[in-house]
Amino acid sequence: MKINQFAQSHPDLSTIKKELQLVGFKTEQTDAKKLFYELLKQIQINPTSSSNFQEKLNQLLATNQERLGDFFSTETPLSAEVFYLVALQLLGFQPTVDFKIDQPLESVIKLNLFHHETIDTTNQLIEAWYDLLNTHGKNDLTLLDSIAAKGYFTKSEFAPNQPLFFKGKAQATFLAKDFKYETVYVQTDFDSDFDGKNDLLKVEITRPKTDVKVPVAYTASPYDQGVNDTLGEQLTHNVNQDLTKKVAGEIKLTEPQPLKHGTKQKTTDSTGQATETHQPKPGYTLNDYLLVRGFASVYVAGIGTIDSDGLQTCGDPQQTASTIAVIEWLHGDRIAFTNRTDGIEIKADWCNGNVAMTGRSYLGTLAIAAATTGVSGLKTIIAEAAISSWYDYYRENGLVVAPGGFQGEDADVLAGETFSRSLRAGDNFKIRPTFDKYLKQMEADQDRVTGSYNQFWNDRNYRNQMKNIKADVMLVHGLNDWNVKLRNPYELWQGIQDLPIQKKLILHQGQHVYINAFPSFDFSDIVNLWLSHELYEIDNHAEAILPNLIVQDNVQPDTWYKESNWPNNSTTHKKVQFDREIFKNDVPQANFLQYSKNPQEWRNQIFNIKDKTLQDNRVVATAEFDKEITINGEVKLQIQVASDTNLGMLSAVLLDYGDAKRLNENPTILARHGVPLGYRWYSDDLREFTLNKKATPFKLISEVHLNLQNRTSPAINEPIEPNHFYNVELNFQPTFYRLPKDRKLTVVLYSTDYEMTNRNNQQISYGVIPEATLAIPFN
Amino acid sequence: MKINQFAQSHPDLSTIKKELQLVGFKTEQTDAKKLFYELLKQIQINPTSSSNFQEKLNQLLATNQERLGDFFSTETPLSAEVFYLVALQLLGFQPTVDFKIDQPLESVIKLNLFHHETIDTTNQLIEAWYDLLNTHGKNDLTLLDSIAAKGYFTKSEFAPNQPLFFKGKAQATFLAKDFKYETVYVQTDFDSDFDGKNDLLKVEITRPKTDVKVPVAYTASPYDQGVNDTLGEQLTHNVNQDLTKKVAGEIKLTEPQPLKHGTKQKTTDSTGQATETHQPKPGYTLNDYLLVRGFASVYVAGIGTIDSDGLQTCGDPQQTASTIAVIEWLHGDRIAFTNRTDGIEIKADWCNGNVAMTGRSYLGTLAIAAATTGVSGLKTIIAEAAISSWYDYYRENGLVVAPGGFQGEDADVLAGETFSRSLRAGDNFKIRPTFDKYLKQMEADQDRVTGSYNQFWNDRNYRNQMKNIKADVMLVHGLNDWNVKLRNPYELWQGIQDLPIQKKLILHQGQHVYINAFPSFDFSDIVNLWLSHELYEIDNHAEAILPNLIVQDNVQPDTWYKESNWPNNSTTHKKVQFDREIFKNDVPQANFLQYSKNPQEWRNQIFNIKDKTLQDNRVVATAEFDKEITINGEVKLQIQVASDTNLGMLSAVLLDYGDAKRLNENPTILARHGVPLGYRWYSDDLREFTLNKKATPFKLISEVHLNLQNRTSPAINEPIEPNHFYNVELNFQPTFYRLPKDRKLTVVLYSTDYEMTNRNNQQISYGVIPEATLAIPFN
Repeated sequence: MKINQFAQSHPDLSTIKKELQLVGFKTEQTDAKKLFYELLKQIQINPTSSSNFQEKLNQLLATNQERLGDFFSTETPLSAEVFYLVALQLLGFQPTVDFKIDQPLESVIKLNLFHHETIDTTNQLIEAWYDLLNTHGKNDLTLLDSIAAKGYFTKSEFAPNQPLFFKGKAQATFLAKDFKYETVYVQTDFDSDFDGKNDLLKVEITRPKTDVKVPVAYTASPYDQGVNDTLGEQLTHNVNQDLTKKVAGEIKLTEPQPLKHGTKQKTTDSTGQATETHQPKPGYTLNDYLLVRGFASVYVAGIGTIDSDGLQTCGDPQQTASTIAVIEWLHGDRIAFTNRTDGIEIKADWCNGNVAMTGRSYLGTLAIAAATTGVSGLKTIIAEAAISSWYDYYRENGLVVAPGGFQGEDADVLAGETFSRSLRAGDNFKIRPTFDKYLKQMEADQDRVTGSYNQFWNDRNYRNQMKNIKADVMLVHGLNDWNVKLRNPYELWQGIQDLPIQKKLILHQGQHVYINAFPSFDFSDIVNLWLSHELYEIDNHAEAILPNLIVQDNVQPDTWYKESNWPNNSTTHKKVQFDREIFKNDVPQANFLQYSKNPQEWRNQIFNIKDKTLQDNRVVATAEFDKEITINGEVKLQIQVASDTNLGMLSAVLLDYGDAKRLNENPTILARHGVPLGYRWYSDDLREFTLNKKATPFKLISEVHLNLQNRTSPAINEPIEPNHFYNVELNFQPTFYRLPKDRKLTVVLYSTDYEMTNRNNQQISYGVIPEATLAIPFN
Repeated sequence: MKINQFAQSHPDLSTIKKELQLVGFKTEQTDAKKLFYELLKQIQINPTSSSNFQEKLNQLLATNQERLGDFFSTETPLSAEVFYLVALQLLGFQPTVDFKIDQPLESVIKLNLFHHETIDTTNQLIEAWYDLLNTHGKNDLTLLDSIAAKGYFTKSEFAPNQPLFFKGKAQATFLAKDFKYETVYVQTDFDSDFDGKNDLLKVEITRPKTDVKVPVAYTASPYDQGVNDTLGEQLTHNVNQDLTKKVAGEIKLTEPQPLKHGTKQKTTDSTGQATETHQPKPGYTLNDYLLVRGFASVYVAGIGTIDSDGLQTCGDPQQTASTIAVIEWLHGDRIAFTNRTDGIEIKADWCNGNVAMTGRSYLGTLAIAAATTGVSGLKTIIAEAAISSWYDYYRENGLVVAPGGFQGEDADVLAGETFSRSLRAGDNFKIRPTFDKYLKQMEADQDRVTGSYNQFWNDRNYRNQMKNIKADVMLVHGLNDWNVKLRNPYELWQGIQDLPIQKKLILHQGQHVYINAFPSFDFSDIVNLWLSHELYEIDNHAEAILPNLIVQDNVQPDTWYKESNWPNNSTTHKKVQFDREIFKNDVPQANFLQYSKNPQEWRNQIFNIKDKTLQDNRVVATAEFDKEITINGEVKLQIQVASDTNLGMLSAVLLDYGDAKRLNENPTILARHGVPLGYRWYSDDLREFTLNKKATPFKLISEVHLNLQNRTSPAINEPIEPNHFYNVELNFQPTFYRLPKDRKLTVVLYSTDYEMTNRNNQQISYGVIPEATLAIPFN
């Protein structure tokens, strides 16, 4: 077990004393040991007699031979050893298992906790105590958060429902029982459902009760009002489709069409009081964590969802306009009504005008979309596992390529699935014919026949507008995310490097998952420091304290470090030799059907180079290194390839070969409900990427897919001359991967990818010049 | 999808009107259609203008061609079709997917919802509305619970924090934000940790704020204050142990030793106000469901846990005394203090003296333990997946047999794991030497060498005292539970049949799991009806309304029915023929090690009769039936067996053979946080046992294990004469299993069970007379 805390600052002693005072700790006592006793007494939640406090102290050890209550009645002075033995216990670490009772300081170092070497004087104690309050325990909480969850800030000495900052971070001083749950309807100035009226959008607000104006953590989630799985399944495409020849030529791209405006609803009255409420329910745990710390949480499902107008458009400019309309209202630049019919205006006068967007996947995607408009009020986005161009989600290099695990999904499928207006029979009755017509057009425009980049995808490429970004950007992405692939954060990250904004990037070892509540990494603290700065405008130096790039190591568990950039500028060109000169696409028809039914079986055979079943369907090359290398960025395979016909589709994987125990890509739950987000409030599950107990022979590092007709660009279809060798550069999805010394880098090149591409069993043979090059960006 | 509601009553019209009035529905309106409009208006949570209400009504359909708002401005009269089309939408069912818009009544029947055929008059509407409020929707909640979770009972017309019963069930009228969280310390009159003082037990109370005395849902959970997994792992036994010969003879059994008394703590003062609190956190969802309905929730970890005294004894009479001490305090028969040191007495004067115990596994086990004392105040237990004799948990017929999935666990391991006092270093420092000594004694007494039934197990057999039970008993158990095996509820159920108490039994298709929040089954409602009757003493006829035995079908999903009893009295004797006359125990040593490492591999080979790998290690017999049979109870295999040495161990499984899609034994999560337990309160995950999408060739029905030396009784060790054939009756774990017509009943007989018994690779051969009999209890 190792704790990595990045949201750390160490101010001077007078600041420390002032801040301690703010959170209830008096530091006048001049005897260090007595002061330690007083500090310990203060963190008790229950009023307690001195005999009872003595008993409670004796639940802890001061040394390996003496209980803490007993220690206080001896003459032995306070020491760093005593302080940290007590600290380890207060932080919930388990004796013997997580720390050694007779070696507290060594244990603190091994756990990677910030610590002080010497604690003899009151000033040393004060500094150590200050840092301890901010130190993470076994339950992923700082000590101060831990006692706050038990009710510390409900003591009479604290004013409830007032912001309180400690070490630059907002503390959990807002009472969940007082939260207000309000619903309003923002009026847009576009009409996406062709009813002649501007779309109204339902906004669900949860906010602390306070006389202070609060900022907002805003999550735009098309899923939030429910999903129509059945419609999604009905729309899902059959991926068993032959590859067809594309007409050669470059696809013409223009600016998106301007939005269609409708009529406005008349304002009849105004009020300061919302009249509609909504059902309290747990949201994204990060928002819930922030709520008790003085940030309102706002959820909007947007156009095409229950109680809103409009259609689901899957990422087009109308959806972006829908997303930012809410920010415009929060910032005072747009109108909202108390309900859908009566025209009574309501202002967000409780809001300080500062907004951050949060959320993962589609939710984070809309945060990116919003940021590219440069909308006022949006101070920062925290986009996790987010799409920056929908072409990079549903297509790749001129091919239809599915998000991992979702074969047959496409923009129209996702639009249907998230069109929650269809779940309300009355509303569905009215709107469905319009939506069905829209879906038909969408199916044609997204063009599954060619898979090329066209106007539909250009309208859904947020990177076209990335120069407009004014909000600071924090990106979080899993290095094993095969749903939203790494090209999405990578291209965005490159594209914003020169913008005059703050940029932060966190790359973790998960798939398409959230990384809250991991004891090894202080993600919530990082966000807290960041948003206290961005939204409460606290001068906490978050921009300097937080590294621009944090990477979780893929070899050692619980290891996160600061890195300079993604990618680095160094590239090595490694010559590799493929094992054959030819591979074919087709397999016996029975196998084709079996692999189509069970792609995992195909995967196990084609990636396992010891398995000969599919040896005619692949070529393999292996690179060896005389020392450990860290791949940082986009590996490129430079190779000469020919197809024996006028069609061609290439797939390749980059594998880490060698028996090893590797990190699990899905978090292990360590304790269900193990992380309280506040006092009398929701909880999160404590979890971690743990090491697999069994060794595995290999692991996927990266993948790439390419239509040979798009060897230059996804928007340029070129002819293929049969049996002509083309120079092809296959750009693998970017990664950050440490390959230890004893392991090999293996490339497998093949054609149909049963898990991701359209599947065909066409008799196509590919010729390969065995000598090829891997261009490897490295650290 | 099918909804099964057992907690249903249908009172007369005047009662219905009175009850509707209580929950806010006026029924004076004489026009049925207008009344329907008023009822719909009343369930709105948000104050709403008439134009806005019209808009909300138009979100629903009244017919397949007309929206509900529009319907109310026509002359068309109300009909059952309109009522149920609206009802289906209000209940959250999805149009097209769950019901057909043009066939509402047929859909209601298919969903198995209670309904009325004709709704023309106001009285018909009133009765239908009354039943609809109690009808379950897609989210497992009744309509009334659904609107309560949205804040219905916070409307100004309802007095908050007062009990309110509707259809015999307590409604969610208590506000979570007002709950009190109190901690007290109950004084026992025994000393289990040899410190000379009677053990104190920490009690954590969560209770509604109300001036009414409330009853208690009490959960005794040794895990509640944390577990020491590391200590548990250290204590886990190596199960690779040779079978050894036992000395012949009958084991002498006596009454348990009387408890050792210590000194009492002096009472110095008394108070009506608790001074210690505890951290609010989600508990068993059933308790949390009950809390907002006016039942206090009390958690106690008991002796050997954090902040309590005593040792962990794993089921001995001291632990039982610890469990009931809390009930005695709640009932006014025992003293508790406000803290551990100051002697200030506190009474449970907020409690009406009525207690129910809840919980699964060890928690339910302690409920059974408590019931067998006949303690006053304990009105009922709801024991889920609970142990009734610890011998039936860790042993079987003279063998060490592990709970499924926990090879090497034993009473001492569980004691160590739950000894949470060891997690507090200071307390551990004081108590650990005593506990280590106790563990050593426990290890000897539990006797893993013979596996026979002895005094240690006799002291932990609650069934010895079952005649003392005065509380009504509700048992819940999964028919696929291989952790707490079915002999536990079965023997208890038989044993209490003649007692003058109410008995209810629910058998579901899960493993060792909770069955709350399943849309197909109204478990929470059943408990609510039951406890409103038992604890609030509401005359709701729960005892008559609820069937004594409810069984979930193993073939059809979402199907639960009333059954007459478990077992039935009919038995068929089916002759079967084994395929061989001999089988051996040993396998090649490499296989022994591999199977020990990966018992699942062994299981797949030995149960799969097409796999010949282990054919010398098993004999197989198959019974065929010319029609469907339902096994109800304990199947017995009557067979003649010989061992070629003076030792012998038999294992057998009963398998359902035949390709079929079967129910998953673990629930599928349909919606995380999908079931709100109340307004601004915790939620549960919506889940269900769904049908596996793939067919499987066979399924385990039951198992049995026997030491041939204990062929008569686990407390009688008999000699084995080598090569002598003994008549042996192998009593399989009881079950309730519907075997469809086209399927076969297969018995596999073998020796070492790598998943459950101690494993040995001794060269022992067993002779079998192939002609054998299966005695099958059936319906």
